[in-house]
Amino acid sequence: MMRTRPLKVALLGCGVVGSEVARIMTTHADDLTQRIGAPVELAGVAVRRPSKVREGIDPALVTTDATALLKRGDIDIAIEVIGGIEPARTLITTAFEQGISVVSANKALLAQDGAALHAAAEQHGRDLYYEAAVAGAIPLVRPMRESLAGDKINRVMGIVNGTTNFILDKMDSTGAGYQEALDEATALGYAEADPTADVEGYDAAAKAAILAGIAFHTRVRLDDVYREGMTEVSAADFASAKRMGCTIKLLAILERAADGESVTARVHPAMIPLSHPLASVREAYNAVFVEAEAAGRLMFYGPGAGGAPTASAVLGDLVAVARNKLAEATGPGESAYTQLPVSPMGDVVTRYHISLDVADKPGVLAQVATTFAEHGVSIDTVRQQGKDGEASLVVVTHRAPDAALSGTVEALRKLDTVRGVASIMRVEGE
Amino acid sequence: MMRTRPLKVALLGCGVVGSEVARIMTTHADDLTQRIGAPVELAGVAVRRPSKVREGIDPALVTTDATALLKRGDIDIAIEVIGGIEPARTLITTAFEQGISVVSANKALLAQDGAALHAAAEQHGRDLYYEAAVAGAIPLVRPMRESLAGDKINRVMGIVNGTTNFILDKMDSTGAGYQEALDEATALGYAEADPTADVEGYDAAAKAAILAGIAFHTRVRLDDVYREGMTEVSAADFASAKRMGCTIKLLAILERAADGESVTARVHPAMIPLSHPLASVREAYNAVFVEAEAAGRLMFYGPGAGGAPTASAVLGDLVAVARNKLAEATGPGESAYTQLPVSPMGDVVTRYHISLDVADKPGVLAQVATTFAEHGVSIDTVRQQGKDGEASLVVVTHRAPDAALSGTVEALRKLDTVRGVASIMRVEGE
Repeated sequence: MMRTRPLKVALLGCGVVGSEVARIMTTHADDLTQRIGAPVELAGVAVRRPSKVREGIDPALVTTDATALLKRGDIDIAIEVIGGIEPARTLITTAFEQGISVVSANKALLAQDGAALHAAAEQHGRDLYYEAAVAGAIPLVRPMRESLAGDKINRVMGIVNGTTNFILDKMDSTGAGYQEALDEATALGYAEADPTADVEGYDAAAKAAILAGIAFHTRVRLDDVYREGMTEVSAADFASAKRMGCTIKLLAILERAADGESVTARVHPAMIPLSHPLASVREAYNAVFVEAEAAGRLMFYGPGAGGAPTASAVLGDLVAVARNKLAEATGPGESAYTQLPVSPMGDVVTRYHISLDVADKPGVLAQVATTFAEHGVSIDTVRQQGKDGEASLVVVTHRAPDAALSGTVEALRKLDTVRGVASIMRVEGE
Repeated sequence: MMRTRPLKVALLGCGVVGSEVARIMTTHADDLTQRIGAPVELAGVAVRRPSKVREGIDPALVTTDATALLKRGDIDIAIEVIGGIEPARTLITTAFEQGISVVSANKALLAQDGAALHAAAEQHGRDLYYEAAVAGAIPLVRPMRESLAGDKINRVMGIVNGTTNFILDKMDSTGAGYQEALDEATALGYAEADPTADVEGYDAAAKAAILAGIAFHTRVRLDDVYREGMTEVSAADFASAKRMGCTIKLLAILERAADGESVTARVHPAMIPLSHPLASVREAYNAVFVEAEAAGRLMFYGPGAGGAPTASAVLGDLVAVARNKLAEATGPGESAYTQLPVSPMGDVVTRYHISLDVADKPGVLAQVATTFAEHGVSIDTVRQQGKDGEASLVVVTHRAPDAALSGTVEALRKLDTVRGVASIMRVEGE
């Protein structure tokens, strides 16, 4: 079964993940050979800065011309760990045109152009694997695409961004404010100098789009994902959450509508009960709940980022793609046959936790309660607290369409007894 | 890509799991067709009692002659959900001889004869998939075989038997004794009339053998797995565990030795800290920690048994095997190239929690401490408690080889100041 001609691998990008992939390919070469059935050889490494010293990588393999590397005619598999849209997109397309299968860790590109890339892979009869694009080392794409291929996934809810989880965990455990916790995350290397992609939820939204497409066998684009960042979550919100027996997490939530005819995809901060397994996901860890009709509730947990964990996912895909190559077969491609539409955020059914600053006089609660009722939103609990002629009112609603909830908040803002809406947060996981 | 000639499936066994498989194959036929690329047709159902009414199954498909069903010449895939060694083993072998790929949920058979079955599958160029054999619906075999194929797994620790977890969880939360908790589990259908396979750890040991083989790419037979049941765990043990900030779980633990040259596999009850994620696995749920060199610590959690969850795993395998069949390829077979030997339990390095009934007189602690020292076992903590001329001594050790620990206990029993060894339990997860 073993053949001796090696499969040749082009590594596109050699940053934190790429250098780890190259290192493991070298140190664990014998194991990879046994598990694949043929040796895999690092045949070229395309980089932007060729002068940078890369320990353990033969300088003769390094090139700045990724296109020429792909076109030289002997490459079997390309590993794309450049990230971002271009040049990654053009290079992956070039690879397929050259009959090269691709392993990618590129969530932004997959979320934006997954359909076109899958089509190019299929047209040329090649593989496109991307386990590393979502939740780092945690096996999630393969279990959802393959292990649950005979089941019906109804809901996915998870923490898919380590940076924001680290920040929120710090705020929860130390009482720190957002900025202080962000500064600590930056100092420790958990947040980038420009943390926008993480804290505004763009990174999580890209992963949500990819997971939603896989979960529901339909196409979900990045633009289809409702997105709210977590920069406005405050120490006061955490104090409110604690009073409710909750904590706050930035969640990606993908749901099939009750009638099964549409899906929703969203990323936003939310309160979840401390008893929920996602509440105890600490530091930069990721965890994803998957609810399927027959399987029930499954959870996958692990490191969601980092060089070595991401490399582990890349190499798992490399073994699979290399095995497929030897068998002259391909793995599962895009499955989007259900063509379920993605409904807007207003259709999502959820609960709200709303803090209002109100005038401390009789009749205010009645006025507020009437506003909720007029919008068809049922109140679960109200807590009223007076302080020097002002009062705060904390309302937790029952489940209602998000449109009705936001309509209620809009109307509350117009009441002259309501001085301000201090915070609004969804409540999930119950 | 879609073909219309259906792939024909023989269902061997139609109990709790089999009937659920048949139901989902019927109700979700269109989805399965889309995901596979061809329809799958239930072509025959082999049962022991043909007269039993099976809702939703065409009586014309039912037969008592499983061998004839496999040999009739048009079957592509067999699903074996009979369980036990025979006739399952002979039927699976017959299937391979007939060019039929097999999906099995049979942990006992895989643990005992996995190597021979894998060899038969490979000889005939067919697939043998068995995700459902370990931890029900939880994707575990595929993630370990495929997602982590580019990584090095060093440790697996998990709760892989739902019945015993239900019993231990009840004992923990209610203070009940073993028999009382077992009775409740039996009444609720979590334990079988004869609970031996579960409570004595045989079921968990079979799963441990399968997982160890996959994790370490070697052969681990059922006989290689050290096994202790949980029938002697008492309410007093839980009280001791609580004092240590621990609970008690029946764990399957698979480890690569520090020098990498051997592995160990064991199933026994153990104390684990309440802060460990496995401590909060409740009722009949399963959860498995996997520690890999690059990926770090991963956890997989979900329902470990039951008709629908197990059927979910079977159907995921059915989709994969059917796809392989259409591509005229096979999935990954047995990977046992490392040929790492399995070391005996005595080589395992762990910690002990030991409760001794001792005479309440001076010098006893010195005598006990000397015994530990003579066996090279270092003591972490000692708690001494006197009562009416008797005293109890609770010793928690540092990590030491299991052989040294059991040697110490043997020597302690011989001390005339030691009236008895009330309990011995390993401490894990720190």
